[in-house]
Amino acid sequence: MKGNTVFFRSSPSIVTSAAVGGKMEGDGPMSACFDKINEDPYFSCETFEQGESKLLKEAVLHALDKGSLTPEGIDVMFGGDLLDQCVGTTYGIKDLDIPYLGIYGACSTVTEGVLLSSLFVDGGYADRALAVTSSHFCAAERQYRLPLGYGGQRTPTSQYTATAAGALVVSAERLPPYVRAATVGRVVDMGVKDAANMGAAMAPAAYASLSQFFKDSELRPEFFDAIVTGDLGKVGSRLLCELFERDGVDIRSLHRDCGTMLYSFEEQDVHAGASGAGCAASMLCGYFVPRLRSGEFKNILFAATGALLSPTVNAQGESIPAISHTVWLSFDAGNVPDIRFERKEPL
Amino acid sequence: MKGNTVFFRSSPSIVTSAAVGGKMEGDGPMSACFDKINEDPYFSCETFEQGESKLLKEAVLHALDKGSLTPEGIDVMFGGDLLDQCVGTTYGIKDLDIPYLGIYGACSTVTEGVLLSSLFVDGGYADRALAVTSSHFCAAERQYRLPLGYGGQRTPTSQYTATAAGALVVSAERLPPYVRAATVGRVVDMGVKDAANMGAAMAPAAYASLSQFFKDSELRPEFFDAIVTGDLGKVGSRLLCELFERDGVDIRSLHRDCGTMLYSFEEQDVHAGASGAGCAASMLCGYFVPRLRSGEFKNILFAATGALLSPTVNAQGESIPAISHTVWLSFDAGNVPDIRFERKEPL
Repeated sequence: MKGNTVFFRSSPSIVTSAAVGGKMEGDGPMSACFDKINEDPYFSCETFEQGESKLLKEAVLHALDKGSLTPEGIDVMFGGDLLDQCVGTTYGIKDLDIPYLGIYGACSTVTEGVLLSSLFVDGGYADRALAVTSSHFCAAERQYRLPLGYGGQRTPTSQYTATAAGALVVSAERLPPYVRAATVGRVVDMGVKDAANMGAAMAPAAYASLSQFFKDSELRPEFFDAIVTGDLGKVGSRLLCELFERDGVDIRSLHRDCGTMLYSFEEQDVHAGASGAGCAASMLCGYFVPRLRSGEFKNILFAATGALLSPTVNAQGESIPAISHTVWLSFDAGNVPDIRFERKEPL
Repeated sequence: MKGNTVFFRSSPSIVTSAAVGGKMEGDGPMSACFDKINEDPYFSCETFEQGESKLLKEAVLHALDKGSLTPEGIDVMFGGDLLDQCVGTTYGIKDLDIPYLGIYGACSTVTEGVLLSSLFVDGGYADRALAVTSSHFCAAERQYRLPLGYGGQRTPTSQYTATAAGALVVSAERLPPYVRAATVGRVVDMGVKDAANMGAAMAPAAYASLSQFFKDSELRPEFFDAIVTGDLGKVGSRLLCELFERDGVDIRSLHRDCGTMLYSFEEQDVHAGASGAGCAASMLCGYFVPRLRSGEFKNILFAATGALLSPTVNAQGESIPAISHTVWLSFDAGNVPDIRFERKEPL
């Protein structure tokens, strides 16, 4: 690590990825990014939670299939989701019989998964590592807010939890995109207590993680074709740009946010945009990875952002801590010569 | 990895560890293993959840202090707990400003933390990595079962969630104990649906993880001074020994279970024993690590075990999946010459 950033020696590759979504995602402007759209929020299961597990499993199976891989070919899998005790993931993957390490980073989970998968491959510990995460609107609403049947009104700053999952496989093969570096985030809590304004809670975490990456890498924002955040939505995206502006850095023309990409603000009733672990994951797996593979993007920073609240402690009056991990994805695997990084050889 | 097991090239060291507990833990036979005992279940906070966060933070600070370390000296921290969205950890560590990767493995969390910390150090990515986890009886009871004020009766197979936390730091220093290898577990679900019988749900996962380690390492159980499980309790421990017996392997004389060690069955009303992420973590940090450092134990296997249920899906009639990750801890750092392990060099 230099600072809080791991620069990978071998630039592991994201060799396959897939995204699966629900009806809202299929009706939106990003529908072509999904390998499968499920119209039924139950996914032909009995409960929304079972539906989320099936959604997540479908993303894994599509990613494996697109890479001509089988579960036996995966050495280790990282996964997690928003449901209490990450049951979306556990029940989704339990029949796949893949060695599994559970992770929790709320909506930042996908970059934590890319980071850890890349580390296992770069360090020579695994040939192939898989990362997956999901979210489900109906399951999340009743867990975090109110059951849908209550017909609760949503505030203008609220975001719509995506019913979506993204899965990807990292290996040492030479196929773009390559994972060049990853910055481990820190918990940031600016005192926001409004659980209907996650963008405001998460923007400072995205700013902290991206700023740390720029510091550690000595790269400038203009080096990148896009600086992508997970699901800040309209409110959080504006705050992020304002935070960078204080440093004299204008990222407006480079900034993309998965939370503002997934739905149509004109035609879909999503208030400040999309959210949920599946939002960033599906946009990474279905939109950015293919465009990095084709060379349409040469270099992007991808900073998924997670609000680490629970309904229990939020009801107790706690503020909402957030975290963001950043990964540098590139069309090129080669070393950037002006980056100096420490890497201690094992004894 | 050979099979599902990482054999570390450099045998990273657990250089410091600490355990903090509550009143029940202080009244039990293991009280001397704790660096601090808190008589107040609220830990001078307003809620049990805040109390758990304080408990976890105290374990981190004690571990750092015993190792003459500061938060700034830690490159990356792994943590998680049983509370929804792992808020015990988030709120506990948010002021420490350490790069943080959240993990979720229920009561298996401590070995997942040791595994990932060791990997960051062994691979040369971090100089020092910290792992922490906790559980809190009062917070867990009301989340997983019923608020304590209801005075619910507990069944004979039920276990008592420990109010305890354990934290440890892994680095490349040469100080026993050394982390020699770690087996990544798989999700195992044998169809147990009784949330008051976690031992039965977890025993097959412990068996799967330990068996995998024996297969991958080609070591025999008798090589070890102790084969330790996390919190199977009386019921799960008996099942684990029976599962090994089917293979013609008798581990009874070697088997220790943190869930049967923490409390006195004669003097404390704990039914089948202790449970909770803090049970295995505090026994690892407060009992086993010091005895491996002194050489009282030469080699142990430590397999913390987690039941990955949530109250929501359990109420929906789902069975309880479980997972267990195993670590081999040793007084000696040296290579065992008859173990052949693959390790691909990065490109």
